[in-house]
Amino acid sequence: MRTPPGISPATFAAAVSQFEKVVGPQWVFTRDEDTRLYNDAYSPFLGEPEERWASAAVAPATVEEVQEIVRIANRHSVPIYAISTGRNLGYGGAAPAWSGCVVLDLKRMNRILEVNEENAYALVEPGVSYFDLYRYIQERKLKLWIDCPDPGWGSLVGNALDRGSGYTFPYLRNHFDAHCGMEVVLANGELLRTGMGALPNSRTWQQYKTGFGPWIDGLFSQSNMGVVTKMGFWLMPQPEAYFCGRVLVRRRDDLHELVRLITLLENSNISSGCPDSSSPLLGIGSIGAQARFLAVDEPLPADDPELAALRDKAEAGDPSGLEAYGRRKNLAYWTFDIKFYGPAKVVAAQWESAKEILSAIPEAWFEDQGEYRFPLTEEPRDHARYPEFGIPSLNNFSLGARSSTNPTPSHGHMWLAPIIPRTAEAIFEANRVFGEAARQFGIPQLRFNLPAWYWQRSAIFIFGFPVSENPAENRHHREVFFHLIDVAGKHGWAEYRTGPVFQDAVARQFSFNNHSLMRFQETLKDALDPNGILSPGRYGIWPKHLRKPR
Amino acid sequence: MRTPPGISPATFAAAVSQFEKVVGPQWVFTRDEDTRLYNDAYSPFLGEPEERWASAAVAPATVEEVQEIVRIANRHSVPIYAISTGRNLGYGGAAPAWSGCVVLDLKRMNRILEVNEENAYALVEPGVSYFDLYRYIQERKLKLWIDCPDPGWGSLVGNALDRGSGYTFPYLRNHFDAHCGMEVVLANGELLRTGMGALPNSRTWQQYKTGFGPWIDGLFSQSNMGVVTKMGFWLMPQPEAYFCGRVLVRRRDDLHELVRLITLLENSNISSGCPDSSSPLLGIGSIGAQARFLAVDEPLPADDPELAALRDKAEAGDPSGLEAYGRRKNLAYWTFDIKFYGPAKVVAAQWESAKEILSAIPEAWFEDQGEYRFPLTEEPRDHARYPEFGIPSLNNFSLGARSSTNPTPSHGHMWLAPIIPRTAEAIFEANRVFGEAARQFGIPQLRFNLPAWYWQRSAIFIFGFPVSENPAENRHHREVFFHLIDVAGKHGWAEYRTGPVFQDAVARQFSFNNHSLMRFQETLKDALDPNGILSPGRYGIWPKHLRKPR
Repeated sequence: MRTPPGISPATFAAAVSQFEKVVGPQWVFTRDEDTRLYNDAYSPFLGEPEERWASAAVAPATVEEVQEIVRIANRHSVPIYAISTGRNLGYGGAAPAWSGCVVLDLKRMNRILEVNEENAYALVEPGVSYFDLYRYIQERKLKLWIDCPDPGWGSLVGNALDRGSGYTFPYLRNHFDAHCGMEVVLANGELLRTGMGALPNSRTWQQYKTGFGPWIDGLFSQSNMGVVTKMGFWLMPQPEAYFCGRVLVRRRDDLHELVRLITLLENSNISSGCPDSSSPLLGIGSIGAQARFLAVDEPLPADDPELAALRDKAEAGDPSGLEAYGRRKNLAYWTFDIKFYGPAKVVAAQWESAKEILSAIPEAWFEDQGEYRFPLTEEPRDHARYPEFGIPSLNNFSLGARSSTNPTPSHGHMWLAPIIPRTAEAIFEANRVFGEAARQFGIPQLRFNLPAWYWQRSAIFIFGFPVSENPAENRHHREVFFHLIDVAGKHGWAEYRTGPVFQDAVARQFSFNNHSLMRFQETLKDALDPNGILSPGRYGIWPKHLRKPR
Repeated sequence: MRTPPGISPATFAAAVSQFEKVVGPQWVFTRDEDTRLYNDAYSPFLGEPEERWASAAVAPATVEEVQEIVRIANRHSVPIYAISTGRNLGYGGAAPAWSGCVVLDLKRMNRILEVNEENAYALVEPGVSYFDLYRYIQERKLKLWIDCPDPGWGSLVGNALDRGSGYTFPYLRNHFDAHCGMEVVLANGELLRTGMGALPNSRTWQQYKTGFGPWIDGLFSQSNMGVVTKMGFWLMPQPEAYFCGRVLVRRRDDLHELVRLITLLENSNISSGCPDSSSPLLGIGSIGAQARFLAVDEPLPADDPELAALRDKAEAGDPSGLEAYGRRKNLAYWTFDIKFYGPAKVVAAQWESAKEILSAIPEAWFEDQGEYRFPLTEEPRDHARYPEFGIPSLNNFSLGARSSTNPTPSHGHMWLAPIIPRTAEAIFEANRVFGEAARQFGIPQLRFNLPAWYWQRSAIFIFGFPVSENPAENRHHREVFFHLIDVAGKHGWAEYRTGPVFQDAVARQFSFNNHSLMRFQETLKDALDPNGILSPGRYGIWPKHLRKPR
């Protein structure tokens, strides 16, 4: 049995034995063969000394048990690291940010406490996965959709607290924004409810977010200020129809007007799904679309040396040859897929209006990508659209698997995910900057890229870096990753989330006025968790005794 | 010159003289004739000892001056009360929550720092009013709308921090939800930027809300944790058209299906404005509609004794006679006005779909209330719709003024504004409960009421209580107000905001687990503002030395 740093074996044994009294010995794990299951399967430090590890894990089934565990940890100054289901592969998995923590594994707390069809919300515990909630809704034939992230096996609570993202309405796509009401266990074991949950007899805990007085929910996202034990979510009523339309344009510089108008459509409430972008001429699709296997690329002549040369010229600043090639072969320079949810006649009118607005771009043309009606009466033609239809799936794991088109399957990945302004100017600039860095480091996969998501008002790139069993390769990729974080930061772009290995580096970038934001967060941390037992280091926030000079 | 409680005249004089050095003596006010301008014009304690008063006021013009003032106040333990423009009449005005505070008046900080048309946002200082921003946008002919509250003279920052509300898209109607990024001066004088504002060189401060790590913005709303000196807001692109359609139904119990379907329309993104409801047969419209002079009531025969008797019977539980009367006279029991923003063909299709969905209610019928196109080429037929068109106005102040139909003008008002579940069941129950209390206290104006706003997912009642120059009358209304807060709380309904006079009472209702939410907020307050100088008592949060036993 390994012990957390700074904790004596005797103290740790005492704490573990008290944990066992609370949850039963079968729900406390201290043997290496058990605790290593909490290691990050996609760790960029696999097999190296810096790989994060848990000293133990404890899996409570009730809020009262969580409170007791936190009190015990507090008494013994044993650090604990709360996870919901620990499925956020690519962003850190179940492993603690600080090696030696006891993982507080909440996946046994998997009750769906309420689903309200009329007011379209759910109240769930941290162990409830997207699949669990989907099954519950289907069994009861409720006309409700869930906004799912790419893999559906994770926790709604965990994903929202990590501020993950999905694919339906803009205000539901941001999973933290779509939450309404929390229950939290604080470091002292006290139980707290936020918003209207603090009002006894209230039935609006999941209907009104902010309650009365300061709204504290944000403190518990991307943080270590408390352990969230319940969380409400707004759901989407099942729409009558979904429609996807594509706009295609000829010239490189059309991207400016295209991004502006796509943004206008979304801010005007005309389009309502998450746009996907691609460049057939450059041979790229956004990773968001790829993750859903969407055929956003037109078929291109393979190994056309003329095309390769024209792409190089375009990348060097002269797209005229590539544009002419596109005209000749009828290939678009850029495409955007625009999505609409609603009554069939409304989505048809929205697509008509979108086409009128987008026709301001000379030579733009349009393609219908198809309509679906709900409930689906048969398997969708395109499995890849599952998350767009509120259906959780694990489809995208097959992306990295060995196949005829992928002879070198990846062992895992880490995501570099900088937020950039929602303008073509920023897309071009980020590509120029990341492209230079890629050449410098010899990272071939970092070619021109398009944002993976267009969030409510910003855009997010996602670059995947493989992790493998080869420490030298992993080291190289980590170095590049750190370098790109740095390069991005200098240009005003930063990660919307990242794995524990990189959290300090990103948090340090938010340095306005000598890190006043981090100093503020540390003030809160010290006040709320003076012994520093809750998830030390998570998102760069360390308790006083572990804080390093900035 | 009066001094804050517990501060010696010498200390106070020293602080005031330092304030004068920072902002110039002309921007420090200590004479009664000046400071009394900060009194709440609608104070429910007008002329009584409990009326809130300021010892002085200081009006800085820059962030650096705010920092200096806060540092001086901190050094001398002088309490300060920050206001933006202090225009939130009915919710407390410019007067401090705790008498004797120095008002930190930010209305000179009135710079519009950025308006971005492509990405539809603004960054403003606290002194910028809705009128200021509107004028700025009109002068530059930007195609942007502002979501305005009822009177447009107030501050965007102040209204959002009070979590006020408007009339356009659901996600913009909640003014706190529609903000993106803050700059805050803390009690120690430190300057903080939230979200992407903490990242040097970032251009996404107004595009991405949450930044990296814990999201702290909520702490500064309805609170006293810091002084907000800049705030970003998402704006709405000017739509092509607005359409308002009315659904009318026959029977009392139709309200259940009606509220369910109106909610479905909004949650499904079919309707996009704030619904107004009324009951022609009961002779009532929502106060929201009244505030905009909307003719949601059909003309009714005045002084019809038959109608009066039928209303009494309906209120007692038998609506059949009133329903029959309605059929005879072709009057609706309930109506809802539903609003749509977007391209003309889209809003037409949305209204068609809404009618199909609402036709599930037997005997429901529909009326077009008219379409508008933008930019308006002439004055709207109905001035009352200004806030629905993103145009600030002061129209609704004329509501309380003396006129042929209002021979007893009010001196002011206070708003009782409980949040209730968005169901007809809750509307009926709240009316029964408030109606009983009204009879008990002889408050005739508290007849059957409909929610003033349907927020994103909940509903809010607004009851106006007059304030006058008659202390006995004011005392009676305060007693009723406190009693109704109490009655509401027992049923799980609480104010979404309230004036300082009532903030302790409402805050105390959020008592889950022995007031753990308030104790949490007090922990933060003590950590962030150990001398308790920032707005003591605001929203029920008192510094340690002024805290009373609960």
